[in-house]
Amino acid sequence: MNIIEPKVLKGFRDYLPKTMINKKKMISYIEKVFESFGFSPIDTPCIEYTEILLGKGGNETDKQLFRFNDNGGRDVTLRFDLTVPLARFIAQHYNELGVPFRAYHIGPVWRGENTHKGRYREFYQCDFDILGTESNLSDIEIIQVMYNSICGLIQSNNFCIHINNRIILNSLLEELGLLSKSVEILRVIDKIKKEPLDKIKSYLENLNIDKDNINKILDLVNLNDDNQNIIKYLSNKLGSNNEGVKNLNQVIEFSESIGIPNKCLKIDLSIARGLDYYTGNVFETILDDIKSIGSICSGGRYNNLASLYTTHKIPGVGASIGLDRLISALEELNKLENRFTTSDVIIIKMDNNFVKEYLKIAKVLRENNIKTEFFTDEKKIDKQLKYADRKGIKFAITNALNEFEKNIVKLKNLKDYSYIEGSLDEIINYLKVNIN
Amino acid sequence: MNIIEPKVLKGFRDYLPKTMINKKKMISYIEKVFESFGFSPIDTPCIEYTEILLGKGGNETDKQLFRFNDNGGRDVTLRFDLTVPLARFIAQHYNELGVPFRAYHIGPVWRGENTHKGRYREFYQCDFDILGTESNLSDIEIIQVMYNSICGLIQSNNFCIHINNRIILNSLLEELGLLSKSVEILRVIDKIKKEPLDKIKSYLENLNIDKDNINKILDLVNLNDDNQNIIKYLSNKLGSNNEGVKNLNQVIEFSESIGIPNKCLKIDLSIARGLDYYTGNVFETILDDIKSIGSICSGGRYNNLASLYTTHKIPGVGASIGLDRLISALEELNKLENRFTTSDVIIIKMDNNFVKEYLKIAKVLRENNIKTEFFTDEKKIDKQLKYADRKGIKFAITNALNEFEKNIVKLKNLKDYSYIEGSLDEIINYLKVNIN
Repeated sequence: MNIIEPKVLKGFRDYLPKTMINKKKMISYIEKVFESFGFSPIDTPCIEYTEILLGKGGNETDKQLFRFNDNGGRDVTLRFDLTVPLARFIAQHYNELGVPFRAYHIGPVWRGENTHKGRYREFYQCDFDILGTESNLSDIEIIQVMYNSICGLIQSNNFCIHINNRIILNSLLEELGLLSKSVEILRVIDKIKKEPLDKIKSYLENLNIDKDNINKILDLVNLNDDNQNIIKYLSNKLGSNNEGVKNLNQVIEFSESIGIPNKCLKIDLSIARGLDYYTGNVFETILDDIKSIGSICSGGRYNNLASLYTTHKIPGVGASIGLDRLISALEELNKLENRFTTSDVIIIKMDNNFVKEYLKIAKVLRENNIKTEFFTDEKKIDKQLKYADRKGIKFAITNALNEFEKNIVKLKNLKDYSYIEGSLDEIINYLKVNIN
Repeated sequence: MNIIEPKVLKGFRDYLPKTMINKKKMISYIEKVFESFGFSPIDTPCIEYTEILLGKGGNETDKQLFRFNDNGGRDVTLRFDLTVPLARFIAQHYNELGVPFRAYHIGPVWRGENTHKGRYREFYQCDFDILGTESNLSDIEIIQVMYNSICGLIQSNNFCIHINNRIILNSLLEELGLLSKSVEILRVIDKIKKEPLDKIKSYLENLNIDKDNINKILDLVNLNDDNQNIIKYLSNKLGSNNEGVKNLNQVIEFSESIGIPNKCLKIDLSIARGLDYYTGNVFETILDDIKSIGSICSGGRYNNLASLYTTHKIPGVGASIGLDRLISALEELNKLENRFTTSDVIIIKMDNNFVKEYLKIAKVLRENNIKTEFFTDEKKIDKQLKYADRKGIKFAITNALNEFEKNIVKLKNLKDYSYIEGSLDEIINYLKVNIN
């Protein structure tokens, strides 16, 4: 018979236990943070009508989409982010949900991008949004969620949330008489950290902006100073009543007052975000130790999320953690936990006459939240121990006739081959203390 | 501007917070059970080469598949179960993983089935398998995982795992001289609980089986007696050395010895499972209170899972929980928890002069694992309280000038409008005790 070569599609990946144990731990951590702020979980289908995801007249030939006709002849597409489905979702269930609405949404999305390090065609996003409010205090809640999440995920505060405000950028462009080209200019500004300076200049030249204004724009967005000085500079330039300056200032001031260190939240006028729907504060998050991987948590404020689907005006603010990109970063930094199994203890089948007794020990351990594998296969004892060692299981129960006669349990430490004996209760208490 | 009607595809669904809070709780529960038995999480792509999922010469016009050509011209399909991807996965990573290998895998799959109650075109499966061992003790581990999982998910033991063994069915067919038609006959037997008797008879007649044998088959598979009597009957009929009888008997005996009640594990000779790869014990799980919804956890033993992709012979045993079907069942039985938000406490913005103080209280509550929403929107106090009430949030912190001057916290119970006052520490201790 012909064997089919087992392989996955380009840009896709399997998760083996080591990576998946880390991924689950990370998801579970951020869910805890999201819920500590009263965000509630939602989910939407992975497949939607193309019209819903792209709007009428969406780009017909977008190479990045997984788009097809289903068996009912419907034009459908796999979701490419979680923001568009959220917009459809809030429009559809507006009356039932009520606002303000704090939602979080974790799941896979698909984009047929060119693949490179840390970029996959199927990847997880973890979105969190506060919908139905214009209050700048919501932005401060989102910043806190970002800060708490990333601190826990990378187990340090070696990162910086870069914050800007689109009203400020637009006000500055207005001063230069360039407001009518704002959308195009912001898209170029968004590329400043990703492409060389002369390319950026040529993009701006292509928008028919004169040299003088190009230099003014670049000087401005590259302004590097501490938050207070930038706020002062902007207040002087745009007036302290400028809505963007006021909001940015409040976010900085209040975040500081609740203990977010200055080094973790910096005004960066070069942050624009490529997406058109942002209208206020915008955020990106860069890891100190691996800047090249790009932002691992981005977002911003929008004035009207769901205008495609409803006449309700739904403002809000949110951000998204790029989980798979973050996992790639942590893999590269060698910061992932090195476990190949969830098992803390293995029960070695020393003597086939005692299977019922092994099963009973396993049952009691499991009831005591000790993750326990029973070696069921027919293998010699040294093979069983070799298996346990290979998987990195730390403890083995190695009871045989002798121990069962004395009604004790023998527990071997597979790291140093020491062992202890005791009643089942004693062994359980020992394990509870000694399992990380 | 034209509004696009917000809607999902037929057979797909949104998860609003109430259902999603329940779903997450259920997933988290079964993950805990899986891991208590030392199963490790894995994941595979949602999209695979069609050839991988269907094998060479798979049915080209299968209406149930979400199959299409991607932008690179590859023939791809959304996974329709988690077993075929698992087979590809273990073949691909065999040397790295080693066996025996305990894996669990939770995620969405897609089938374009006709939709009816509890059936969706996108639904979650929760698979758990022990790969690389022929030992019948693994089947007993799987039965325990099934039992522990379902007990927790439905919070009772009002269910029954129906167990049979394909070797037994084949031995019985051999006795009747019908072994050559075994595959077809087992597929008919699999329908016995889903279709009327005369239809079943006509299916068997279509296989050219004579009336006498049809009656013998039906008498046999409808045998209704307690486990011990069925084992006795089968031992007499097939000999107590029959591999199927021996394995079934051991599963029953050992499961009983570790406390699985008789009423929750019954031999049922009508269980065949439709899938061809099963070769030994097979299982289905029926809820006592809503039998009509069908099996919510099924599985069995297979001799050679990955023969399409590797020359390694990989036997194993596993089962799958149909999570979305179970959620539908619990919805119908009115057994889902009725929460519309994760928030336990809301901080009411009584006075805009104290925003920094509200943020600080929120921060401390969150650090103490109390899920806390801060009402950020600009709304009058009665509107804020109405919002909290509508969401079912139980407690509100309603501090204003008076409380801040006295350095106390005022906590209102929104169910009975009673309130208490105290230091922040005292309020936190009170909440820790009084939040469910």
